[in-house]
Amino acid sequence: MKIGFIGLGKMGAAICANLLRAGHEVCVWNRTPEKTHLLLKAGVSLAASPRELARRSETVFSMLADDAALDAVLDGEEGLLAGLNAGALHISMSTIAVATAERVAALHAARGQRYLSAPVFGRPDAAAAAKLFVVTAGAAADVQAATPLFEVIGQRTFHVGDKPAHANLVKLCGNFAILSAIETMAEAMTVAEKGGVPRAALLQVLTGTLFDTPVYRNYGAILVEERYRPAGFGAPLGLKDMRLLGQEADTRRVPMPLLSLLRDHLLQTLAQEGEDIDWSGIGRTIAGNAGL
Amino acid sequence: MKIGFIGLGKMGAAICANLLRAGHEVCVWNRTPEKTHLLLKAGVSLAASPRELARRSETVFSMLADDAALDAVLDGEEGLLAGLNAGALHISMSTIAVATAERVAALHAARGQRYLSAPVFGRPDAAAAAKLFVVTAGAAADVQAATPLFEVIGQRTFHVGDKPAHANLVKLCGNFAILSAIETMAEAMTVAEKGGVPRAALLQVLTGTLFDTPVYRNYGAILVEERYRPAGFGAPLGLKDMRLLGQEADTRRVPMPLLSLLRDHLLQTLAQEGEDIDWSGIGRTIAGNAGL
Amino acid sequence: MKIGFIGLGKMGAAICANLLRAGHEVCVWNRTPEKTHLLLKAGVSLAASPRELARRSETVFSMLADDAALDAVLDGEEGLLAGLNAGALHISMSTIAVATAERVAALHAARGQRYLSAPVFGRPDAAAAAKLFVVTAGAAADVQAATPLFEVIGQRTFHVGDKPAHANLVKLCGNFAILSAIETMAEAMTVAEKGGVPRAALLQVLTGTLFDTPVYRNYGAILVEERYRPAGFGAPLGLKDMRLLGQEADTRRVPMPLLSLLRDHLLQTLAQEGEDIDWSGIGRTIAGNAGL
Amino acid sequence: MKIGFIGLGKMGAAICANLLRAGHEVCVWNRTPEKTHLLLKAGVSLAASPRELARRSETVFSMLADDAALDAVLDGEEGLLAGLNAGALHISMSTIAVATAERVAALHAARGQRYLSAPVFGRPDAAAAAKLFVVTAGAAADVQAATPLFEVIGQRTFHVGDKPAHANLVKLCGNFAILSAIETMAEAMTVAEKGGVPRAALLQVLTGTLFDTPVYRNYGAILVEERYRPAGFGAPLGLKDMRLLGQEADTRRVPMPLLSLLRDHLLQTLAQEGEDIDWSGIGRTIAGNAGL
Repeated sequence: MKIGFIGLGKMGAAICANLLRAGHEVCVWNRTPEKTHLLLKAGVSLAASPRELARRSETVFSMLADDAALDAVLDGEEGLLAGLNAGALHISMSTIAVATAERVAALHAARGQRYLSAPVFGRPDAAAAAKLFVVTAGAAADVQAATPLFEVIGQRTFHVGDKPAHANLVKLCGNFAILSAIETMAEAMTVAEKGGVPRAALLQVLTGTLFDTPVYRNYGAILVEERYRPAGFGAPLGLKDMRLLGQEADTRRVPMPLLSLLRDHLLQTLAQEGEDIDWSGIGRTIAGNAGL
Repeated sequence: MKIGFIGLGKMGAAICANLLRAGHEVCVWNRTPEKTHLLLKAGVSLAASPRELARRSETVFSMLADDAALDAVLDGEEGLLAGLNAGALHISMSTIAVATAERVAALHAARGQRYLSAPVFGRPDAAAAAKLFVVTAGAAADVQAATPLFEVIGQRTFHVGDKPAHANLVKLCGNFAILSAIETMAEAMTVAEKGGVPRAALLQVLTGTLFDTPVYRNYGAILVEERYRPAGFGAPLGLKDMRLLGQEADTRRVPMPLLSLLRDHLLQTLAQEGEDIDWSGIGRTIAGNAGL
Repeated sequence: MKIGFIGLGKMGAAICANLLRAGHEVCVWNRTPEKTHLLLKAGVSLAASPRELARRSETVFSMLADDAALDAVLDGEEGLLAGLNAGALHISMSTIAVATAERVAALHAARGQRYLSAPVFGRPDAAAAAKLFVVTAGAAADVQAATPLFEVIGQRTFHVGDKPAHANLVKLCGNFAILSAIETMAEAMTVAEKGGVPRAALLQVLTGTLFDTPVYRNYGAILVEERYRPAGFGAPLGLKDMRLLGQEADTRRVPMPLLSLLRDHLLQTLAQEGEDIDWSGIGRTIAGNAGL
Repeated sequence: MKIGFIGLGKMGAAICANLLRAGHEVCVWNRTPEKTHLLLKAGVSLAASPRELARRSETVFSMLADDAALDAVLDGEEGLLAGLNAGALHISMSTIAVATAERVAALHAARGQRYLSAPVFGRPDAAAAAKLFVVTAGAAADVQAATPLFEVIGQRTFHVGDKPAHANLVKLCGNFAILSAIETMAEAMTVAEKGGVPRAALLQVLTGTLFDTPVYRNYGAILVEERYRPAGFGAPLGLKDMRLLGQEADTRRVPMPLLSLLRDHLLQTLAQEGEDIDWSGIGRTIAGNAGL
């Protein structure tokens, strides 16, 4: 299939490489062209603009940092919206606002273009190993058409609703659940430590009994070892995601006090530690608030 | 070994039966004697008081509802403290306050008696199947001596510290982590549902990706199906445990805002739903607060 | 002085009438022209657009519902920015975002126009009685020039900083402090009532001792009598203001957990009571959460 | 009247002096006798025990640090309960738990003794100037009998209920409202300061408009000047009071999330600043959490 790929950060580059490896004809575009070199060597072609890329593709993937980056790619004379053929499909993997996904879906629909949201769970190494979890939403026919592509890049696909924005909502909920687990472990480890129980001993019980799952094991180890830098997922990005979920909660009239707490802890962490800390750095904040 | 067992609720009876089945000579006492009938048929003997039971035992287990029930068994002329021989061992499995465990440990030590805290994770069916997780703390020699007994009743034992109270602190932290997971799922399911994503769809993503563990699967299903009655673990007991952890946090000067949030949600649930609801009933409160 | 006035809601109309009464030549514009009738009878003139109004005025006041309404008045061919003469002054009384005020200030400065933020505290009856409190910020010369006008409409003026946005920030903080006082009284009245002390008895002590001030007296009476409808200041407007302050807190990296709590209580109130309730309706939510 | 006075800290000594000055025959007892010297010179007599004091008095005032201190005075062979004559009146001014007040009231009633709770608002200087606010509850006849005494020590008396514990509940609510006002100002000042508005400028607006009352003026000045030491009212005492109110909220099933927040901020303040800081020291914590 003729595939376009926009956004070649760590995640995007790894996913793109898998699509190429599976035999697809891949055309790429990136805001900073240097990031395309390795992929060009591997056989992708380079488009001069999102518009040109779209014109040459049956399916376009985008994997961008935030809502503004997506808008920049979509809009304007050289944008994706201007170039995508009627009936062609845009698969947006970025973690963006629910309202943004709704708006973008409507823009595509107005032009006879197809659109799926398909954010993913997994880090760059999972992307490279084609072990991502893909959460998608949109028209059933579009999901069916995209499924062989999702199978190339991930280990499992979840179809969570018929409106693309549903997938973005689920993705934000997933990130909320991860940060909640970090908050939980950090508070528990802090009271345990002040009470004489080493952090590692508590973690061993949690992950050895009821919480035997990667989120608790991996982030638990980070909290035990206080490995908050370099950031795997930066606190500013975490704050952005919590803010996006907060906007949806605000619009839908849903009080989420745990979400509020997480936002406040991220703000404290950013204020005290700076912008380069991992989002799990709330662990340092929580310990510090207890005088540790 | 000559074993005494005090407290024959659902958990205690199942554990006691496993000790008997393993060939030990077991003597029991319970505040309400009716609960001893089945075990008497199975071969245990009955003591007239905690004191008599203690006098006849090398090791005494207790599994009681709360701090007050434990004190009632320990104190007085016919109490456990009065009867336990010097060098004999009391293994307390109840979920009690950290400060209570410290006090009880000191009372035993003053009489030359040995004491371990050994609270467990698992429900009555896990107790019956000898699949409990045992969290113990105390002198290494005592833990070593008790290990064969723990292996009779559970699937794994964690030794978390040399002061008995350490085990109680870890147990309370574990219950805190469970209720935090319930809070997390309930908030996420509520915003998802109001945004058009069914609760079950969100749960499938969470447990199918990063949270593939019994706490999320089992309590997630309860939240999806709104099965809050009959209570598996009642909200008043949940509140008691959160209060006990709060006391320790207060004493140790540890702010735990997530714990505070859980307590407030339990209070709201008890105020609006009554005392017979499961602690996962905070899910109803969280949904109701969003107008569902 | 030749004065333009844009935005003739209850507050704006009352302020405008006082400026006219003081002998100024006043020209008005309102999105819905019906609201101008009474003022036209009283002697103001009517402009066809914000641009025309601005062209005819030395000083333009605006008092609008929110950021979007202000932008609609400022922008476009017939907008205020296009019409305001170099050196003329725009005094914005609307409760808007801090960032919006900064942006608008820059737009005016780029055109050689002067700009002050001057939000007010007080309800429509205080506006009619010229008893408002004016909070202003901006260049000292502009504040000095505007002071005689502020004296016409209010009882006291506070100059809080040299950047116009400072006044907007203080206004948002003031509304936050009011809602915090409501939250405080509502929680206290709820625990008092469940403990056997009538709400009115508690309020009498609070306002009779340490809290003898209108906010506590007036909102306290609303809470005692549960007069949440019709809304004096609607919960959606309250939520908007808390959201605007939250945006500033987010940008500045300031955790404000009490603000977070107020937002969550407003969301619950809106979800359960609908959009027409007063912002003090959080009192009903707080009582309801305790089963009252 | 023959009056006994127990508890001669700063508050108690000042109140006691006013009773003596009004012409009453006053007998005192204090745990540390040194504190009685000045009063002895002024004309009070000294009792050897609470029991002896009670036997010689028609009315006994107590003003003690906490529940334990009150119990120590009441109980035992030489205690107040043993000495108070049938029909004599005990007026307890200490800030104690609601449940403790109920228990003490029942103990007195069982002996035919009368009991009023009468906690006060005001600092030592207000006590010396006889400007306290007295909050009392209990049988109407007892309140009537005590009113002339309250008029000697305070500027105004509030009778809030017929059960003595009602007064203790109201007192705790009052302290909660004070700390809430401090929290409110501290959060607002922090976001204002980071946004470029001096703390003093914000305070001037708040107290110059809607919050023109001593709590805001006095504690606002403390926050502006960061005068957290020496403590006027220590953070440990503040935490005690919030804990006592929390116990009542817990028993009555009342979620009080603002109270929870205040407790967590006090715990953080104590953990980071030590036990000698004023309860308004939460202002330092709140600023610190924002990186100031």
